[in-house]
Amino acid sequence: MLLITTIAGVRARRRELWQQGRTVAFVPTMGALHEGHLRLVDRARELADEVWASVFVNPTQFGPGEDFERYPRDLERDRALLAGRGVALLFAPGVKEMYPRPPATVIDLPELASGLCGAFRPGHFRGVALVVTKLLAITQPEWAVFGAKDWQQAAIIRRLVEDLDVPVRVEVAPTVREPDGLAMSSRNAYLGPDERRAATVLARALRAGEAAIAAGERDGEAVRQAVAAVVAAEPLAQLQYAAVVDPDSLQPLSRIDRRALLALAVHIGTTRLIDNLLVEVS
Amino acid sequence: MLLITTIAGVRARRRELWQQGRTVAFVPTMGALHEGHLRLVDRARELADEVWASVFVNPTQFGPGEDFERYPRDLERDRALLAGRGVALLFAPGVKEMYPRPPATVIDLPELASGLCGAFRPGHFRGVALVVTKLLAITQPEWAVFGAKDWQQAAIIRRLVEDLDVPVRVEVAPTVREPDGLAMSSRNAYLGPDERRAATVLARALRAGEAAIAAGERDGEAVRQAVAAVVAAEPLAQLQYAAVVDPDSLQPLSRIDRRALLALAVHIGTTRLIDNLLVEVS
Repeated sequence: MLLITTIAGVRARRRELWQQGRTVAFVPTMGALHEGHLRLVDRARELADEVWASVFVNPTQFGPGEDFERYPRDLERDRALLAGRGVALLFAPGVKEMYPRPPATVIDLPELASGLCGAFRPGHFRGVALVVTKLLAITQPEWAVFGAKDWQQAAIIRRLVEDLDVPVRVEVAPTVREPDGLAMSSRNAYLGPDERRAATVLARALRAGEAAIAAGERDGEAVRQAVAAVVAAEPLAQLQYAAVVDPDSLQPLSRIDRRALLALAVHIGTTRLIDNLLVEVS
Repeated sequence: MLLITTIAGVRARRRELWQQGRTVAFVPTMGALHEGHLRLVDRARELADEVWASVFVNPTQFGPGEDFERYPRDLERDRALLAGRGVALLFAPGVKEMYPRPPATVIDLPELASGLCGAFRPGHFRGVALVVTKLLAITQPEWAVFGAKDWQQAAIIRRLVEDLDVPVRVEVAPTVREPDGLAMSSRNAYLGPDERRAATVLARALRAGEAAIAAGERDGEAVRQAVAAVVAAEPLAQLQYAAVVDPDSLQPLSRIDRRALLALAVHIGTTRLIDNLLVEVS
């Protein structure tokens, strides 16, 4: 596996692959890799001749008081995991390579970014949109693979790619869960043992919402309350939001007709976790 | 010359050129071509193996009440002019091809876009940033060539390309002027005979500012007033703004040390014209 830290190095390699007619599927990450990331790599391997990944903890998507400083970093471990999964090129730039000066350009998708996590993390999705646009322009892959756990992020990127005619196909791969249902996340590493047990409340709450829909509930607010009630019953959990939205537009659904995304953010102690579940009504 | 109206058609041709190892220099236009555009084509021909141009009157960069509807359109004439100047491919999409639905993505560079023309055309440079980002993603040229007459636009695009790591080099070519100094512009076609004579006031005003600097004036506001006074003396002209700014940051210069951009927008009747002059202090 090639480890490349400069934009110029990535571009040079990309030119070689074009000459060889080889395609690339790209998996951008912030490192601290877990099995969820590695399944994105597995999916990417099915799509293109080569899998490329990036590890970059992007400062512009963290707000003041968020966990940019303490976000887990272990490039050696990430590198070994990606190499073991068949990644051909790892792009791991420093902050100065990605942002030689503060960017003057803002990319925003207000309709998609203002609700859900965006309401509690102002500027977060602007940072995501900027860094993903940059990474796609640097790596110029045929495919880019994102995880469904960050559903709002994936919806924003899909729309950004469409709106800007970025020449890439976006693939969104399913959330990978621990045996007890907890969605895999780099931030799970922050949890103490009691918190780790309490963290299963997110998946349990989503399943309760799904069960309500399966039982015939079609009122979005009633489903939302069923989700929220499960979180409220867990002493170590503090609900930030629970929402029932259209999976594409991310706008709240008053009535569930066909597809609904159940989404929530919960603090377990000082750790903020998110999860979501797509429910299709037959 | 190939005339292509679809994004897919352009991408297919671009892939062929990659395989042949041939480079592209791209000249985006809104049509209604004049010698100023054609000199951009000439410059582009020096930079790459093929020159590509686009003709697209971009609705998202016109504000309500601006001249989107009456903006001059003559694709047959534009096509002949571009073919005659050696353009290999003309991309002339319809609005539905570029915007199959209203874009949800906003690209803004507030520091660069809020002053000068941006103060009087809210949303204009968002529209420019969006369409140029799209056109560069569609054509994927090695070079893109813009005119210095739209200096603020060129400064914004240069910064956008840097911030987003768009893999293109931006070339800004000098303003082309009529023998009496009027900067060439598609909007000059709106001018009646008296207005056409009055329109020379823009270039005369800029030269007066340049003369003031040459005579030792270093106070930005004094130079700005020298420019504005020339416009004020022309009965058919109505000054929208005159400014003395840093050529890169576009921020007003209180003191002129090295380089200054003199810029102005003037209404001649109902026609809004802009012009600018870069002055270097030796």
